Amino acid sequence: MAELSGVRGCMVIKPWGYAIWERIQKVLDGMIKETGHENCYFPVFIPLSYFQKEATHVDGFAKEMAVVTHHRLIMKDGKLVPDPESELEEPLIVRPTSETIIGEAMARQIQSYRDLPLLWNQWANVVRWEMRTRLFLRTAEFLWQEGHTAHANEQDARAETYTILEVYRALIEDYMAIPVVLGEKSAGERFPGAVTSLCLEAMMQDGRALQAGTSHYLGQNFARAANIQFQSPEGKLELAHTTSWGVSTRLIGGLIMTHADDDGLVLPPKLAPEQIVIVPILRDEARRAEVMDYCERLTRDLSAKTFAGENIRVRFDQRDMEAADKRWGWVKKGVPIVLEVGPKDIEKKCVAVMRRDDLAAKKTFPLRDEFVAGAVALLEEIQTGIFARAAAMRDARTRTDVTTWEEFEKHFGKDKEGGFDANPGFVRAPWGGDEEAAETKLKPLGVSIRCLPLEQNVEGLCVITGRPAKFEAVFARSY
Amino acid sequence: MAELSGVRGCMVIKPWGYAIWERIQKVLDGMIKETGHENCYFPVFIPLSYFQKEATHVDGFAKEMAVVTHHRLIMKDGKLVPDPESELEEPLIVRPTSETIIGEAMARQIQSYRDLPLLWNQWANVVRWEMRTRLFLRTAEFLWQEGHTAHANEQDARAETYTILEVYRALIEDYMAIPVVLGEKSAGERFPGAVTSLCLEAMMQDGRALQAGTSHYLGQNFARAANIQFQSPEGKLELAHTTSWGVSTRLIGGLIMTHADDDGLVLPPKLAPEQIVIVPILRDEARRAEVMDYCERLTRDLSAKTFAGENIRVRFDQRDMEAADKRWGWVKKGVPIVLEVGPKDIEKKCVAVMRRDDLAAKKTFPLRDEFVAGAVALLEEIQTGIFARAAAMRDARTRTDVTTWEEFEKHFGKDKEGGFDANPGFVRAPWGGDEEAAETKLKPLGVSIRCLPLEQNVEGLCVITGRPAKFEAVFARSY
Repeated sequence: MAELSGVRGCMVIKPWGYAIWERIQKVLDGMIKETGHENCYFPVFIPLSYFQKEATHVDGFAKEMAVVTHHRLIMKDGKLVPDPESELEEPLIVRPTSETIIGEAMARQIQSYRDLPLLWNQWANVVRWEMRTRLFLRTAEFLWQEGHTAHANEQDARAETYTILEVYRALIEDYMAIPVVLGEKSAGERFPGAVTSLCLEAMMQDGRALQAGTSHYLGQNFARAANIQFQSPEGKLELAHTTSWGVSTRLIGGLIMTHADDDGLVLPPKLAPEQIVIVPILRDEARRAEVMDYCERLTRDLSAKTFAGENIRVRFDQRDMEAADKRWGWVKKGVPIVLEVGPKDIEKKCVAVMRRDDLAAKKTFPLRDEFVAGAVALLEEIQTGIFARAAAMRDARTRTDVTTWEEFEKHFGKDKEGGFDANPGFVRAPWGGDEEAAETKLKPLGVSIRCLPLEQNVEGLCVITGRPAKFEAVFARSY
Repeated sequence: MAELSGVRGCMVIKPWGYAIWERIQKVLDGMIKETGHENCYFPVFIPLSYFQKEATHVDGFAKEMAVVTHHRLIMKDGKLVPDPESELEEPLIVRPTSETIIGEAMARQIQSYRDLPLLWNQWANVVRWEMRTRLFLRTAEFLWQEGHTAHANEQDARAETYTILEVYRALIEDYMAIPVVLGEKSAGERFPGAVTSLCLEAMMQDGRALQAGTSHYLGQNFARAANIQFQSPEGKLELAHTTSWGVSTRLIGGLIMTHADDDGLVLPPKLAPEQIVIVPILRDEARRAEVMDYCERLTRDLSAKTFAGENIRVRFDQRDMEAADKRWGWVKKGVPIVLEVGPKDIEKKCVAVMRRDDLAAKKTFPLRDEFVAGAVALLEEIQTGIFARAAAMRDARTRTDVTTWEEFEKHFGKDKEGGFDANPGFVRAPWGGDEEAAETKLKPLGVSIRCLPLEQNVEGLCVITGRPAKFEAVFARSY
């Protein structure tokens, strides 16, 4: 899937991991375009001065960034060094996110209300210097898409953030089979500069929360900084309302930690780069041609079927390797269905079927034609089953009966060995909205408010302060 | 299409320009995968030390690079500055190309001859500090794909470079309608470290050459530096033979400068993001619904047709704008066919057809059903015609009758006004292979050897030295 490289905190995404990212891109890019957005590309470098205003005005400005200061290398005493004479007048930052530089382009593009909404998206790499890195989840460089839109009024801009939240939900739940809680970030957890941050929170198998995507309403804050103005129908100059939203290769980390088991990855069919792999059993040289022919026809017939709007992705694995090694390789990669076909299967007109979502079950040997006829239904069943399993796990580890701080502390607190409970999952409980109390009391437990779910069920008193509750909140440890 | 940004030498690629890049990506990515390559992703940062060996051994090492030296910003006296305490122990270079870092990953991946060939490709941004920049053609940051492959022997590696040359030719000639000369670079023009550099040279309308793509056989040079070894079938440790190859957003510059005219871009249908645009004429409010319905059915019928293996890309332009402004907008963007439909056209059951490749011609008014039936043939005709026109232009500006240095100097030399001839095009002439003489005599003319065409026709004496010729070469000014 991936490996850490010789470069601090940067990863190499290997072919299978990248193929999964390409599937995510294809599905998401289609939905982003269907909802009216256009792709563009903006510079990887952002002049330091663009951050100056933000740094002065925004609390929580993230300062860990890669800074380019020179543009030339020279040999000095046999060693390659940055040429002191090539020092840049103004340092450049490798983009950690592109609000500032895209805002500048928007200001040039927008004159009149007729230019709105402006709906842009870019697929790009970004860099955030991280002290502790973790493959796919937290790396200095990662790949993502970042949407940036400008609207004539608050209502339109807020509607945009919900449109995107639903796009992300469809990707993450319907394709990746990862159940998520949709919600709003509390003030203390918002994107710096945002008025409202919507998010999707998933629960990993270890009970930690993963923020799978965010969609921010930025009010007029960024428009003011970048001077994104338009002439209204009445001829008045007004500031636009902007949004930004993104998901990243972090989703691949979420996929792994939601579905993987001791034998490796488990891929939901809709996202799998290969959905069915056919492994020929070729020990009997005399019948080799017969087996190959049977497998080729099987590949053709399965590929002609449509699942989730696309032809089934079938791979006939003809590599010169042992069948058992091939099978094991595909199991580790998480391919939903592996078929084996040898001379005996051909005699019985059947195929040997192994399901990745249930390796413990024995292989089945349906008739070949029946398997082909039922393949789409089987993929659907696997997709649904994987989601249901993850949702059941999440629900089983979500407590809604924690009502006092004592109970809360006991739930998230130290266990007998003195460490924290390794898998406390989510607690959904009433919260009064006191940010300071939350910060003070949650931090020692390593817990945070993940979100205020969109579906609010506010009952009882704040679990932290005991005062009247204003919200229902999800509490958890997180990645 | 694009604009220079507030960042020195970096461009913003706007939606239409990016849509063209997505078309290039889609076509090329399909061909790269069909020829057995897999996509991966490697870090944007390369440690300085990776270049140390190259810099010592390789003449012509490019030193203009973006150097990251710090990883944090701090506020000092109200100003944001790189934190001196965050200086990196080893500076990081923003990748100008990825041979070194991919070589390192290959060395980890390859143990045995069974792991070969290793056929990797990545789509990425790269940065080369350029003193003089030009939109799409020479920018500090650009987008490209870079293929990197490792093979067990020279023969396989060389075959790979020709496979890719043909893939590039198909993209550039068959889709982008840009005629190219396939050839090999002379020693002085090779990629530093390459044994052989194959290339595709196009002629722009101003007569300058544009290197549209390159495919390098790197011998064992990079394998030696990165220690890419494998155990042969006989159990011996051997160095792999590697290749690298790439094309970039520079191709969009080539597309513009090959086909554009005074009215804007002219897109070959196979590459156009939209192939047919339908503009409704809606001045008569009473008949608005009728026009919209006619256009919708037209859109549906045209979209159902297949051209070059894909459904025809039809856009029904329903924006709230004047029809004339819409039409002019699509003309500037280079859309091959614009249809206009108003009440009168409906009465006559026809459509008004404007061809981008021949704006001077009057609009035609074929019957609607006849237009639909002939749409695929018309797109094919436009595609072929645009290529033929570019090829004729190129051939008309390619001289093969320049046999002496006097003639050569006169052809490329100063004109009456004392400047160089603005459009001397290509000269194909015999060359003796003397690099020093070529360098000395060509440089003052601003001319270089673009390539030694694969189809060699060596006759007569070297045009530079008058000594026996070894090659036929293409001479030109270039971008």
